[in-house]
Amino acid sequence: MLNIGLLGCGRIGQVHALSIGQRDDVQMTALADAFPEAAQKLANQTGAQVMDPDAVIASADVDAVLIATPTDTHYDLIHAAARAGKAIFCEKPVDMSADRIRECITVVEEAGVPFLTAFNRRFDPNFAALQSRIRDGEIGQVELVTIMSRDPSPPPISYIERSGGIFRDMMIHDLDMARFLLGEEPVQVFAVGSALVDPKIAAAGDVDTAAVTLTTSSGAICQITNSRRATYGYDQRVEVHGAEGLLRAGNVLENTVEVATSAGFCSAPTKHFFLERYAAAYRLELAHFVSAVTTGTPITPNIVDGLRAQMLADAAADSLATGRPISIS
Amino acid sequence: MLNIGLLGCGRIGQVHALSIGQRDDVQMTALADAFPEAAQKLANQTGAQVMDPDAVIASADVDAVLIATPTDTHYDLIHAAARAGKAIFCEKPVDMSADRIRECITVVEEAGVPFLTAFNRRFDPNFAALQSRIRDGEIGQVELVTIMSRDPSPPPISYIERSGGIFRDMMIHDLDMARFLLGEEPVQVFAVGSALVDPKIAAAGDVDTAAVTLTTSSGAICQITNSRRATYGYDQRVEVHGAEGLLRAGNVLENTVEVATSAGFCSAPTKHFFLERYAAAYRLELAHFVSAVTTGTPITPNIVDGLRAQMLADAAADSLATGRPISIS
Amino acid sequence: MLNIGLLGCGRIGQVHALSIGQRDDVQMTALADAFPEAAQKLANQTGAQVMDPDAVIASADVDAVLIATPTDTHYDLIHAAARAGKAIFCEKPVDMSADRIRECITVVEEAGVPFLTAFNRRFDPNFAALQSRIRDGEIGQVELVTIMSRDPSPPPISYIERSGGIFRDMMIHDLDMARFLLGEEPVQVFAVGSALVDPKIAAAGDVDTAAVTLTTSSGAICQITNSRRATYGYDQRVEVHGAEGLLRAGNVLENTVEVATSAGFCSAPTKHFFLERYAAAYRLELAHFVSAVTTGTPITPNIVDGLRAQMLADAAADSLATGRPISIS
Amino acid sequence: MLNIGLLGCGRIGQVHALSIGQRDDVQMTALADAFPEAAQKLANQTGAQVMDPDAVIASADVDAVLIATPTDTHYDLIHAAARAGKAIFCEKPVDMSADRIRECITVVEEAGVPFLTAFNRRFDPNFAALQSRIRDGEIGQVELVTIMSRDPSPPPISYIERSGGIFRDMMIHDLDMARFLLGEEPVQVFAVGSALVDPKIAAAGDVDTAAVTLTTSSGAICQITNSRRATYGYDQRVEVHGAEGLLRAGNVLENTVEVATSAGFCSAPTKHFFLERYAAAYRLELAHFVSAVTTGTPITPNIVDGLRAQMLADAAADSLATGRPISIS
Repeated sequence: MLNIGLLGCGRIGQVHALSIGQRDDVQMTALADAFPEAAQKLANQTGAQVMDPDAVIASADVDAVLIATPTDTHYDLIHAAARAGKAIFCEKPVDMSADRIRECITVVEEAGVPFLTAFNRRFDPNFAALQSRIRDGEIGQVELVTIMSRDPSPPPISYIERSGGIFRDMMIHDLDMARFLLGEEPVQVFAVGSALVDPKIAAAGDVDTAAVTLTTSSGAICQITNSRRATYGYDQRVEVHGAEGLLRAGNVLENTVEVATSAGFCSAPTKHFFLERYAAAYRLELAHFVSAVTTGTPITPNIVDGLRAQMLADAAADSLATGRPISIS
Repeated sequence: MLNIGLLGCGRIGQVHALSIGQRDDVQMTALADAFPEAAQKLANQTGAQVMDPDAVIASADVDAVLIATPTDTHYDLIHAAARAGKAIFCEKPVDMSADRIRECITVVEEAGVPFLTAFNRRFDPNFAALQSRIRDGEIGQVELVTIMSRDPSPPPISYIERSGGIFRDMMIHDLDMARFLLGEEPVQVFAVGSALVDPKIAAAGDVDTAAVTLTTSSGAICQITNSRRATYGYDQRVEVHGAEGLLRAGNVLENTVEVATSAGFCSAPTKHFFLERYAAAYRLELAHFVSAVTTGTPITPNIVDGLRAQMLADAAADSLATGRPISIS
Repeated sequence: MLNIGLLGCGRIGQVHALSIGQRDDVQMTALADAFPEAAQKLANQTGAQVMDPDAVIASADVDAVLIATPTDTHYDLIHAAARAGKAIFCEKPVDMSADRIRECITVVEEAGVPFLTAFNRRFDPNFAALQSRIRDGEIGQVELVTIMSRDPSPPPISYIERSGGIFRDMMIHDLDMARFLLGEEPVQVFAVGSALVDPKIAAAGDVDTAAVTLTTSSGAICQITNSRRATYGYDQRVEVHGAEGLLRAGNVLENTVEVATSAGFCSAPTKHFFLERYAAAYRLELAHFVSAVTTGTPITPNIVDGLRAQMLADAAADSLATGRPISIS
Repeated sequence: MLNIGLLGCGRIGQVHALSIGQRDDVQMTALADAFPEAAQKLANQTGAQVMDPDAVIASADVDAVLIATPTDTHYDLIHAAARAGKAIFCEKPVDMSADRIRECITVVEEAGVPFLTAFNRRFDPNFAALQSRIRDGEIGQVELVTIMSRDPSPPPISYIERSGGIFRDMMIHDLDMARFLLGEEPVQVFAVGSALVDPKIAAAGDVDTAAVTLTTSSGAICQITNSRRATYGYDQRVEVHGAEGLLRAGNVLENTVEVATSAGFCSAPTKHFFLERYAAAYRLELAHFVSAVTTGTPITPNIVDGLRAQMLADAAADSLATGRPISIS
């Protein structure tokens, strides 16, 4: 039985609390949130004890902390938890600054604690099955990767303003997915972008429509596109072209119903809400963490994966700002 | 909060226990099973109290009973529960004998207790959405219904021998689905069947491959096929052709991954196990029961639906035996 | 070079004339039609000589006749052509009477002339590929065949009245397809039908919505449905379930364009017009005839296939009239 | 009746000769080829007269010339034909040099003759329908365009060496398609590329795997990928994401047959050969030319479209060579 202390009881914290409640091999013993009512409400539902974050980290009844607080608090919490010898499950991004992530890596490696960077999409059963088949050699050497991510609608401008920009906020998932599928590090990033959805996004210094090209040292190429809007729902597709074939994973639709009329054959739109779309991914992400911590096996994606994705997002932002391709060392 | 007493802790009883555990508005207070260890194990997981079936039905802490015991015990349990004034959630079939179901209807109607016949497929989000769109008039008058159900592999011969035959054991789901989609009662049944999968099934007096044609008084036609084997997984499809269009619901695949090679484009097989395939249906079935009992609204499918499906299965068996179409009064 | 005399210059005769014009190994030397202008117009386009039907059949410049005249003229033309030693390409149905077809068989067999019954769908590249894969054993023993045919809209009532009824006019294609896919003879036919599309069809003594169940001596089962209307275009699908898998062939859509909006994902309707839907089939049908006649290899489907399909259509009509399954000897 | 003189009787010339032969409103009166036997063989099949190219262009029996000769001969033939007042149908590319195309534009505009640059894919019924729906506003403002083109296998190295490189030889089709779908001019091109398929392609100074990003002044973005190999056939897909929805056109498969086994559901590979894949496009391309020349209506794509595509291919090659994005004036 792994005892988890939850730091942050907002939307994503609640998702993980639910996953914890569905398993027999893990329990939530403590939790903390800056809003006392949010903490108390989740405590009532789960039986976990409300504490200060420091107390959660210090508690002898806590083996691992799950960090689901605002990004700017991650740095301190990671340092404290690592020094306390706790295993760490940390929501993405680890931090907005690659340099600060490097400092986190130092303390985590010194402490020797397990660390999961919660890129949930790697655990989606569809993308995970696809990647596993690539690694098994089913399509030979990877040559071209195409990743498309489009959200149903943009977040509030107030969110955009604090988001770090589309590459660090939205495309970071796709940049991690690119590394996951390519199986090697990109060495160059080129980005373009436009504000086509809402002029307020441009006014906030960001774009809402973006495209990135990654290249690796072996010559593999990855193209990623993002849009902050898609009238047909939450759109998440990947396609990998290899020397011996192609693997792709399409959208998850709301249901399997199809109607045929004089307009043609119409199926359902995609699942609209990311928590529903990735419900299985969140469960499997927790399962991987619990299993790896309990058995001492490696965790993937780890904190270095968190750094690598952040470096690619930084490079994409730099490319958009300068208009030039950016090399990654 | 609705208090449920579970009668029968086998595979399907455990499925419902899990659904109960995931809801806030219902709890399992008591349970019973002919095997004391099965009962105790589920009691340990849920906190419900182990009792005799009679005690469960009599308990003041039980508002509703969920009957998941072998079919031949349903009759007595329904009588006892109805007389005790408990709401009843009864696994299909209500009974193997239409006459005995009629006796159950009498006691249930006299007692005035809510009764759900657990035809889970009506609650599958895909089939439910399809049926709802028919009722909303999206494709006009229903003209032709096609239902295909194929299992990955036949059950053990020992099961076949006690099953009541393919029409009462397997096709009864499709016969209920036919009524659900047609929106009116079939007035004639014609059946053909063969034992193609396993000669032992023929030796047991049953068939493993069957086709039925239903007709209604308005002239709508429904064709159903069943097979006890399908190499590509659990196959469950419906298609409804109406005056103004066609609605269909296809299979649920294991994942969305597709591979392209010189052999063509290949997607995953269907979900192989019915409990996984219909996981959402079982949850929504319980939700409907709890909501209807709590608010006093009608339950569908009710005990009369259980009778109607059984009458169609009986007629199909009669048609196969006699080689003639059978009229339903 | 095979010299063909065309008997009948209507719509289907013109289709075959076009196919002849596209090949190097066959030419149309003579043609006939009851309407002199129709004959002359096609003669102008093709360079063939206008003659009386008897002259076409007698001509030394004609190796084979292509009979595309009204059905009630087939009998006499077949007799004359067979006695003249000409190879015969005959549009379906050979005749409306199975007994008269038997007489044609006698004269054709006595003359020893090649004979093609023009069931064009057997030559559709999709259905032909599917059948070939069945015969190659890809899905093992055939167990369940499902055939769906739906027309965009019913023909004029005047046509219905002279058509011989839906089974002989429309479903005969599907009955031949059933034999093609089953690979053995049906021994029993059961039919139901309704007039749901147009009450004038009922008034004409016919139905517009029909379903047939065929069974073979090995126990294979085939279900066929027909409707005289389909708002989404010309609908022609077959599915064959075998011991080791399933083969199916879906509709041919107008194009590959798909649109995604909040309504979901919509693709094009099916090709609406049967001459366009089966354009390749008509070309390949002619190619088979020319090749078989030229090389002396067997023709399929031949005149016996024409008889067998007619017998199944007769049995279906008989079943609908009597309400009972009909055995085929 | 439009009289056409064919210049070049190779593979693509024969395709156009076949299209001409299938129409009533156009005829081929003269033809020329550097190989006398090739010319004579096609003359025998069509009845056209073999001449020198100059004589074809000068002939009073020729209204329009169809230039299907090697690219390096286009320049002189265009000059001669324009000065002779003939309408011109010219295979792509117009010339390998943008400057020489500009000279051709001058002579064509001075002569005022109709000119078609034969980008056949614009006439594919699928892509044409998709583009027409964009122009009709069905998905609102175009934001992201994705174009994928992959050939079954690379051409001979001897061909690669003279091809002008992947951007001018292969991607030029996609660059024209991008302009067709975007509806505005790209202002910047960024290209990456690798030789992954065959080291001899690298040795020839070319790449076989390439990706380009185009941006327009309105902020629309287009990503294109090319590969010289695809084990699953000829792969040609486009997808256009707009403010109000998404339109895409997928591959054309060899047939509609699908098989289901324990491996899942498998459909046919794509049509393998481009002449078969684009058979309808070639016919419709000729139809557009004949109709436009006959009625005096505008031709699209014209010679300026030929120039624009060449400029984009040049810019892509320049970007790959320099590693920088290239602006288009």
